[in-house]
Amino acid sequence: MIDLDRIRADTPATSRLAYLHNAGAALMPTSVVAAMKQHLDLETEIGGYAAADREAERLDGVYGSVARLLNAAPDEIALVENATVAWQMAFYSLPFRKGDRILTAEAEYAANYVAFLQVAKRTGATIEVVPSDASGELDVLALERMIDRRVKLIAITWVPTNGGLVNPAAAIGRVARAHGIPYLLDACQAVGQMTVDVEAIGCDMLSATGRKFLRGPRGTGFLYVRRALLQQLEPPMIDHFAAPWVSRDEYRLRDDARRFETWENNYAARLGLGAAVDYALEIGLAPIEQRCRLLADRLRSGIAALPGITIRDLGRVPGAIVSFTIDGHEADGIVASAAAAGITIGASDPSSTRIDAERRSLPHLVRASPHYYNTEAEVDRLVAHLADLT
Amino acid sequence: MIDLDRIRADTPATSRLAYLHNAGAALMPTSVVAAMKQHLDLETEIGGYAAADREAERLDGVYGSVARLLNAAPDEIALVENATVAWQMAFYSLPFRKGDRILTAEAEYAANYVAFLQVAKRTGATIEVVPSDASGELDVLALERMIDRRVKLIAITWVPTNGGLVNPAAAIGRVARAHGIPYLLDACQAVGQMTVDVEAIGCDMLSATGRKFLRGPRGTGFLYVRRALLQQLEPPMIDHFAAPWVSRDEYRLRDDARRFETWENNYAARLGLGAAVDYALEIGLAPIEQRCRLLADRLRSGIAALPGITIRDLGRVPGAIVSFTIDGHEADGIVASAAAAGITIGASDPSSTRIDAERRSLPHLVRASPHYYNTEAEVDRLVAHLADLT
Repeated sequence: MIDLDRIRADTPATSRLAYLHNAGAALMPTSVVAAMKQHLDLETEIGGYAAADREAERLDGVYGSVARLLNAAPDEIALVENATVAWQMAFYSLPFRKGDRILTAEAEYAANYVAFLQVAKRTGATIEVVPSDASGELDVLALERMIDRRVKLIAITWVPTNGGLVNPAAAIGRVARAHGIPYLLDACQAVGQMTVDVEAIGCDMLSATGRKFLRGPRGTGFLYVRRALLQQLEPPMIDHFAAPWVSRDEYRLRDDARRFETWENNYAARLGLGAAVDYALEIGLAPIEQRCRLLADRLRSGIAALPGITIRDLGRVPGAIVSFTIDGHEADGIVASAAAAGITIGASDPSSTRIDAERRSLPHLVRASPHYYNTEAEVDRLVAHLADLT
Repeated sequence: MIDLDRIRADTPATSRLAYLHNAGAALMPTSVVAAMKQHLDLETEIGGYAAADREAERLDGVYGSVARLLNAAPDEIALVENATVAWQMAFYSLPFRKGDRILTAEAEYAANYVAFLQVAKRTGATIEVVPSDASGELDVLALERMIDRRVKLIAITWVPTNGGLVNPAAAIGRVARAHGIPYLLDACQAVGQMTVDVEAIGCDMLSATGRKFLRGPRGTGFLYVRRALLQQLEPPMIDHFAAPWVSRDEYRLRDDARRFETWENNYAARLGLGAAVDYALEIGLAPIEQRCRLLADRLRSGIAALPGITIRDLGRVPGAIVSFTIDGHEADGIVASAAAAGITIGASDPSSTRIDAERRSLPHLVRASPHYYNTEAEVDRLVAHLADLT
């Protein structure tokens, strides 16, 4: 069971704000902020190197925490600046040639898609978008039919930015495994919201951010790469941490996933990330997921009845991102009016998932994303606010 | 004039420690730590996105501060995770073909050299090391003689990690300019220690870190790219911030140096970096440089007379990194004994500058790096400590 009183006490802004923007950047628990401030204090007291040395065990423990979160091993984890860097280090490590096919999903995120375009331009690989089924999820049967020997990567976003959709990550994983195709999963908006088990999913690479549902610091991210694959991947860029300089004309890549890292790091932020992961694990991802869905469903039910509101979510069992438009109101105006009423929500730009947005002729969407620390009353406050608008 | 009392009051650890490890990670002024903590507090209070929005002007100002530090324009600056990423984003953007020549220096840093090796392996470019002159500085006449049409990059470390040397960055710049060759300068241990003027130097790209002599946070770095060059460079990896997704099959690179950034950032660390740069600018880089040299020279003079000590510094006018060995003592043991006496210094591994280290048969070196905030008495404490050891 989720102890909402304790959790809200750990999240002081909940006493003032209905914070429903957890797919943007969630509120950090006090333990996360304290971990960062304590490390900054230690750096102030003894210097940045000595502080990292003294906290070496806790810093090393962050790999263990992230590994537990994903059901992976610590040597399969790289800690990096953000989810984009995590995703890039995996994607740009893969060798592509002319005619190779990259399969992705309709609601793929812009950050990833421009990287596909760059690599397609460089190598002659092609990008192919797997169609969605009637519910809006990636159509796994269509994916299966598209597989041939030229498919060199399946890369999809599990929980896209623009609403509700939870792609069938594990079903996709079964297809990837059956055909021995590398599978890169962008789990940015999944981690911290639901159980993420790389074995159950069958992905070979998974990238994620700290700041969203995981409630970690901004400027943190991580990459999982399956051990069997990582030793075949040469990172697109290296330094002497990723690849020690062993003789004048030779470097040797590290054996573990830290070959995707660089030497220098923001250790305060790393400790904050570790604290955030530990906090989520302590509560448990299963109860977190259950409560996220309950609150998101309450929000969807609450606004479904309002005149002029269109819910823009996709998928059979939508997650904790609720996206909608209101006739005669711009998304930014709705976000601003909610902010003035002490309700924090966000907006999503069609250019961030251009293919899906064009297919569905989506304008800017309002995006509300509750988390387990929200109350039913906060969700109802947003519904009431929107009812006043419409 | 440097107001040492005020500066030391801003650096609380100086009341307990003789901190002479500024080439590793310097002590941050209280304003730097406060800038970070205040932003973390704001994120706790209103969320990570709203906090970045509210501080947008100050965040934008960091580009201006770094530009002033370098005598560049704000649109020529990218703020990134660390100096390695800054250097990599520049280096890996350059197109190389078989037979192209990369010229570098004997004391080039390991992080950069392994990247040269990777690109040489990928492209067939060759790495050629410009010899040093009798003083140990890069020999500019030898560089001039090595230039031909196949030289596609001059990439050197201005102030190498292993001692004293300040390479003739501006004289190298004159050669690069005269022949129209791109010039990438690793200024990691120069920024914050001395005046850095990209116009006077004539470099096209410059990378640096926040944590060393600049006294900024760990996990911060920046890249300067001259405006005329940057628009010719396609970054090795992109996201939708670097290159917005403008139509289904097209991205458009940003016009400014932020094409080398990714979307998500640690904003607290950025504000800390800005505060560090502003702090240095307020004191003035000329007086900082003068005092750094004065203290480093005092240290060199003090230890020169001690029996069994060999100073390992190079160059005509050495900077604020003093490196040495003591007969019969391992570097790590010396560092540990100093730490026990409240004196913070560091060690340098031969593998971090392998070519110079092998040429000079260098073992691990002790590295002491005073900064303007140190006192003469602190330098003398280290000398006395080493005298006791020998």
